[in-house]
Amino acid sequence: MTELLPKQVLGDLREAVGDDWVLADPDRLLVYEADAQTAHTRPPQAVVLPATTEEVSAVARALHRHRVPMIPRGAGTGLSGGAVALEGGVVVGTSRMTRILHVDPGNRRALVQCGVLNSELNAAAAPYGLHYAPDPSSQTACTIGGNVAENSGGPHCLKYGVTSRYITGLRVVLPHGEVVELGGQGREWGSFDLVGLFVGSEGCFGLATEVEVALLPLPEAARTLLAIFETVEDAGRAVTAIISGGLLPAALEIVDRNTIRAVEASIFAAGYPTDAGAALVVEFDGVEAGLEAQAEEAARCCREAGAREVRRARSEEERTALWKGRKKAFGAMGRLAPDLLVQDATVPRTRLPEVLARITEIGERYRLQVANVFHAGDGNLHPNLVFDRRDPEETRRVEQASAEIMKVCVEAGGTITGEHGVGVDKRKYMSLVFTPAELEVLRGVKGAFDPMGLCNPGKVLPDHLEAP
Amino acid sequence: MTELLPKQVLGDLREAVGDDWVLADPDRLLVYEADAQTAHTRPPQAVVLPATTEEVSAVARALHRHRVPMIPRGAGTGLSGGAVALEGGVVVGTSRMTRILHVDPGNRRALVQCGVLNSELNAAAAPYGLHYAPDPSSQTACTIGGNVAENSGGPHCLKYGVTSRYITGLRVVLPHGEVVELGGQGREWGSFDLVGLFVGSEGCFGLATEVEVALLPLPEAARTLLAIFETVEDAGRAVTAIISGGLLPAALEIVDRNTIRAVEASIFAAGYPTDAGAALVVEFDGVEAGLEAQAEEAARCCREAGAREVRRARSEEERTALWKGRKKAFGAMGRLAPDLLVQDATVPRTRLPEVLARITEIGERYRLQVANVFHAGDGNLHPNLVFDRRDPEETRRVEQASAEIMKVCVEAGGTITGEHGVGVDKRKYMSLVFTPAELEVLRGVKGAFDPMGLCNPGKVLPDHLEAP
Repeated sequence: MTELLPKQVLGDLREAVGDDWVLADPDRLLVYEADAQTAHTRPPQAVVLPATTEEVSAVARALHRHRVPMIPRGAGTGLSGGAVALEGGVVVGTSRMTRILHVDPGNRRALVQCGVLNSELNAAAAPYGLHYAPDPSSQTACTIGGNVAENSGGPHCLKYGVTSRYITGLRVVLPHGEVVELGGQGREWGSFDLVGLFVGSEGCFGLATEVEVALLPLPEAARTLLAIFETVEDAGRAVTAIISGGLLPAALEIVDRNTIRAVEASIFAAGYPTDAGAALVVEFDGVEAGLEAQAEEAARCCREAGAREVRRARSEEERTALWKGRKKAFGAMGRLAPDLLVQDATVPRTRLPEVLARITEIGERYRLQVANVFHAGDGNLHPNLVFDRRDPEETRRVEQASAEIMKVCVEAGGTITGEHGVGVDKRKYMSLVFTPAELEVLRGVKGAFDPMGLCNPGKVLPDHLEAP
Repeated sequence: MTELLPKQVLGDLREAVGDDWVLADPDRLLVYEADAQTAHTRPPQAVVLPATTEEVSAVARALHRHRVPMIPRGAGTGLSGGAVALEGGVVVGTSRMTRILHVDPGNRRALVQCGVLNSELNAAAAPYGLHYAPDPSSQTACTIGGNVAENSGGPHCLKYGVTSRYITGLRVVLPHGEVVELGGQGREWGSFDLVGLFVGSEGCFGLATEVEVALLPLPEAARTLLAIFETVEDAGRAVTAIISGGLLPAALEIVDRNTIRAVEASIFAAGYPTDAGAALVVEFDGVEAGLEAQAEEAARCCREAGAREVRRARSEEERTALWKGRKKAFGAMGRLAPDLLVQDATVPRTRLPEVLARITEIGERYRLQVANVFHAGDGNLHPNLVFDRRDPEETRRVEQASAEIMKVCVEAGGTITGEHGVGVDKRKYMSLVFTPAELEVLRGVKGAFDPMGLCNPGKVLPDHLEAP
């Protein structure tokens, strides 16, 4: 049960943001008990919704004074429990901080408040022929501030790179309420890279209230292919052939047989053949000239790797249709069973086929359905385990299989997360990839920002936990 | 005068790396008294040249035990005094750590020891059709470890991005001798980004002994233009037009009138007209298709901005010739006077024309010759001041002009360094761009790696210094 906050704390918070923007009613707090990964739940002691940097600073000062943990939260689309108040404390939501402050086409930058949605930033940049490249699948719901916290990826990050490449400045409220400017206006170089360090810090170093991003020209044109394979290993070999042939697609995405079947059984049916072992989406974008030759070359790689069919989008509608099976995969899988554990790991691209084979074996051994969706070009895997958490025995099998999958990825030279963060869910795996000396450095860096340990406590660092 | 090291320290260092690789003879130490920026000089108390991570670790442990500062040093091509033992201590040179450990074309990565030259890494990657993109002008002399420490840029970093984008893993000896692995083998994501933090830390957090880098396919083809302008402002306007037209050149480099004259008066004469106000080098690279159209469009932008002449390279020889005036600029300026202060600052690209006009005015007011070379696409300026440091009055004017130039760049929304680092030389300007609270965070992060303050002390952080 969540303890009530002392009246004086609530009073100070109300003074900071106004009565309307402090939620303390248990019914309203329930909305904030989990993020999109529902394995870790606890309602916060209160939620505050500030509108400006100054209000966030006043909130942080009040919480720090009363030694109450602060849990920054964007849209709550995270998948590792990072925005949940598991050790108590107050969630600081950013849903009112939605102003696009400035779009500067000459310097190809924009300055936004942290609660702006990824897709809204893109809409604001489009009239200038620009876009913000990182495109998490949740981009119509997730916020730029959340993308900063998680260093989010997305299908097109193969070519364009992940969030950290595009964040050039941050206005940050530190855990004790002080406001600092990191980078900004071309200041991304000079002294230690605190901007880069803050990106991906999962809400443990403070709350970024304003974010300056680099924009790119909208690609002039695109070519999209869908290749159908008998086995996921063949699809993996096509990926290797495309990359080692020197091509640089904007996206290289694989969905496996279980995923295809889930999609085709759902309202998102995209016309992928349900007897196929895997489907590979390949997209090239950029200037028109040259795209056709690249697409032809990729189609040839797919056929040589054993594709039984290669479809080409001939219009924007056909392109959307080819993407549909990939983009709606998580939604479709959610319908297979009450619960879905979306795993996230990264392996060197060349190790994909063997790792996939081992994941299949693990799923069979634990009698679990595993559906794989992956950013194949980056080696970023999402093995998804469907289950019913009302069944404790099945839930245990999911946990055990999940831990084995993580170990397999690490043994193949990979790591325990690709884009969803460590949060709460992966803390137990941190010792697989970090030595005690390395964890000590991570703790030291966290301590430089948050000496009292009050900012998103219990996340990322595996303190007070047993080995997996 | 440099104090002698106690015999016991020298003994421990000799035990760590062998007698031959500990230099303590004053004549040999003189070689290490400065980096390429000669304003700050002091010979170290000793130099050690380890060959392996284990030897670096043994050296660090010995120095830490005796509380002697450790100063990591690559090729010494830095331009901010970062590799000089100004507060005493032992230089740990990396000139024996020159092994290319592994090139992995399938995952487009390479693993090298820190002392490998930038150009040697490129030579090793070329047979696989790959290259390491960041190309500092000193690439035939500078080391990958030094590039990591300085987060080096280069002409082609406009399109490809600077060093931090390409470093995927580091093996680091911490100041107390512990060895940690940061990132590596696809582990660049997952928890706080210590790899990104270490890149650009200017030797203050430890010594990276092994570096894993991402490689890119060699561009299939390139198009190179040289545009000649009456004024540097016109060249600046051409840059703005090219960028805001949606083109993304691989390089956009300007040299001004004083630089052209220095080059043409030297043995590097490149055929640039000496009555011109500025020359702009524009290069596109990538797949062959589309390059021609981009080059035509850029030529049109140059003509519309007032270029009196646009030359096109029709062969690899002509391309080399067009680049020559830019690449040899620093060498040529070195011949104008005994000393050269290479400045380094960054401004938002759109503010370039006004900043250049103010730099010209400052040069005139202080009766100094200022020659500008700049990575125009990035807004990274190098105003170079030639002088004779045997003339104390002229030296004082150079220092004053330099400080004014920094202030102008900061006022225009820029920062105090682009790619040469803060080192010793820019410490006094740190308070122009960081508040006391921000400096406190920087100090805290440094302390997480180096609690005793023994690793490259007196660099980057402006402790114990007056305001500029």
